[in-house]
Amino acid sequence: MNLDLLRELAVPNDTRILLLVIDGLGGLPNETGRSELEQANIPHLDRLAQESLCGLTVPVAPGVTPGSGPGHLALFGYDPLQYDVGRGVLEALGVDFDLQPSDVAARGNFCTVDGQGRITDRRAGRIPTEQSAPLCDLLARIELPGVRVFVQPVRDHRFLLVLRGEGLSDRVSETDPQREEQAPLPVRALAPEAEATASLLNSFVAQATGALRGREPANMLTLRGIAKQPPMPSIAEICKFRAGAIAAYPMYRGLARLVGMDVLATGQSFANEIETLKARWADYDFLFIHYKRADAAGEDGDFQAKIAALEEVDTFIESLHALQADVFMVAGDHSTPAIVAGHSWHPVPFLLHPKSYAQADTAEGFNEKACARGVLGTFPAKEVLSLAMAHAGRLTKYGA
Amino acid sequence: MNLDLLRELAVPNDTRILLLVIDGLGGLPNETGRSELEQANIPHLDRLAQESLCGLTVPVAPGVTPGSGPGHLALFGYDPLQYDVGRGVLEALGVDFDLQPSDVAARGNFCTVDGQGRITDRRAGRIPTEQSAPLCDLLARIELPGVRVFVQPVRDHRFLLVLRGEGLSDRVSETDPQREEQAPLPVRALAPEAEATASLLNSFVAQATGALRGREPANMLTLRGIAKQPPMPSIAEICKFRAGAIAAYPMYRGLARLVGMDVLATGQSFANEIETLKARWADYDFLFIHYKRADAAGEDGDFQAKIAALEEVDTFIESLHALQADVFMVAGDHSTPAIVAGHSWHPVPFLLHPKSYAQADTAEGFNEKACARGVLGTFPAKEVLSLAMAHAGRLTKYGA
Repeated sequence: MNLDLLRELAVPNDTRILLLVIDGLGGLPNETGRSELEQANIPHLDRLAQESLCGLTVPVAPGVTPGSGPGHLALFGYDPLQYDVGRGVLEALGVDFDLQPSDVAARGNFCTVDGQGRITDRRAGRIPTEQSAPLCDLLARIELPGVRVFVQPVRDHRFLLVLRGEGLSDRVSETDPQREEQAPLPVRALAPEAEATASLLNSFVAQATGALRGREPANMLTLRGIAKQPPMPSIAEICKFRAGAIAAYPMYRGLARLVGMDVLATGQSFANEIETLKARWADYDFLFIHYKRADAAGEDGDFQAKIAALEEVDTFIESLHALQADVFMVAGDHSTPAIVAGHSWHPVPFLLHPKSYAQADTAEGFNEKACARGVLGTFPAKEVLSLAMAHAGRLTKYGA
Repeated sequence: MNLDLLRELAVPNDTRILLLVIDGLGGLPNETGRSELEQANIPHLDRLAQESLCGLTVPVAPGVTPGSGPGHLALFGYDPLQYDVGRGVLEALGVDFDLQPSDVAARGNFCTVDGQGRITDRRAGRIPTEQSAPLCDLLARIELPGVRVFVQPVRDHRFLLVLRGEGLSDRVSETDPQREEQAPLPVRALAPEAEATASLLNSFVAQATGALRGREPANMLTLRGIAKQPPMPSIAEICKFRAGAIAAYPMYRGLARLVGMDVLATGQSFANEIETLKARWADYDFLFIHYKRADAAGEDGDFQAKIAALEEVDTFIESLHALQADVFMVAGDHSTPAIVAGHSWHPVPFLLHPKSYAQADTAEGFNEKACARGVLGTFPAKEVLSLAMAHAGRLTKYGA
């Protein structure tokens, strides 16, 4: 259901909803014919699946490989095609930058150019963060009329640029020509109100070009995904619940903050996250907890490491289940099959364990194949929140 | 498909479509782990399912619990989120009131107020209809300038108010404060054109307050769901067929009339409905027949009575099947699980038995679990009519 209808039907009560997101959860069979989840020894997830409603979630649309932003927004109830969060904003969230609604953020890449200014390496040899950080300090000294300039390293050759001031617009083009042997493009205004922002960004690039001269391989930069924070309705307000987020990585904390969740302070390990969850259990109606390692292993193309990550998270399922949430869900923001070594478009295993009113299900375990035969079928991830709300008794009837 | 496309593709022919709606059909497992349908002895439905396309219908949207109005409109091909029929209109349909397009209808509740006018019981102790009927007669005598006033008892503390006149608007607020210890609210105009209607309704309430004084527990009233009949395209006209409806309960007759079906006179029992169906079989291309008892048993929370109702309707399946419709469908407007004792959001078992062009299916019987594995999967109820039209050979090709 869309957010307007959800707002209309939502009523408060005293139930608890727990959402565990296993980042990059879904996988694909390797040469054995069995996927990471099928090979992993995950008795607690398997048993939970047998007592749950199972299905496969489609994060954005069939065939669409989502980034972390759309993948999580869908699980939080937002149509990721409607609520498009720009790359620059996601980069800002990812480094815990305190982005303001009027800020314009861009993802910067250091790159290498030749004597004619043509790009010879779009990633400046993927210079390590230790090398790019001092360059960011250099760029942060650039002064532009009427706006403040923030430059922060992200990782390797990537950095964050933020302009803060009045009347900035994100209706501007990117400078990355998307291929080598071409010079970076100038920023163009895509709407009349963006002329001033385009010229500020071009002035930034001109000054940066001077500052980086001779600093091969990082002797130039490109700017992409220039964006402002989109106006997002608060899910806590829409659903009339108190929502808390527990995530060690800044990106996921940022996404949760963007949709109106309280971000709870927590340590770096998943065990720390679980401690935080238990400590704050009474304070919230909806709690989102994030497990990262499965995605990282998948991104590395490390099939065995992904199995190990899934087996690790399985050891925590009992303690999560013991909290006796009225609705306990295990979901993934997208698939990250080790054989792809990256995100993929494949639908993602999902289970919803309700305290009451469970449909009969027949899933034999928690994996792609079993969930495909689950009672929820293959369905849009943006419906997950509505299902949780229904099973928590938090939605009134539609129509008489 | 939407109604515009359906209108574009629909062609007449001499086939028959039969839609049996078992009200509140879907259920949930009780402590035995099996649902009402799984426990019921329904050999005819089970056998029919084995020869049919099966699936689960989602009446409105995942997680949404529908009222009878949205549940039926979806089965008739209307998106219930687009065609929103107000509570007042449904109440009018439910008592066979001959509502005109310019009428404004409201659902009235008798309530109890204290000496300060604050509500102490929103349902006036659920006074029986015999007690509320004479009060309705009192209220029906209220005179308002330029409009006719109709007041009819519905059931217990509920009644129907209709204003008939020129230029009435339903863009007005409700008077029910939705909780006790508050006085009923005045009607407010929500648009400039509704000022006159709001003041007429406030005048009605003022006069009614006088008329009801001292008549505890029903010494006051509230008005809700103040609505006009929404403009609905006729499904008979869209589909180019003659559509007939057979239902003992007024609400379902009213919904059928709203979408352009002929409402056929019938007796009170389902056996009477079947007789009517047989008698009028030659006169219509599309026939809708309604079975109520399953919902009533579910609403009562009576698991065994719901099983009995399902077993009763099963005994009629042979005679329905014997009519040899080109498309015979068995559907539910929503689930009414006995363990919920009310409507629920759960997808509803559905079967479509075509005379020809059946996809291979694997459903073993007619219940939630078997239909979840059916070839139609879990799909929006508003697609049921399109599927029927297709299998009846009543839709032309889209595009060359």
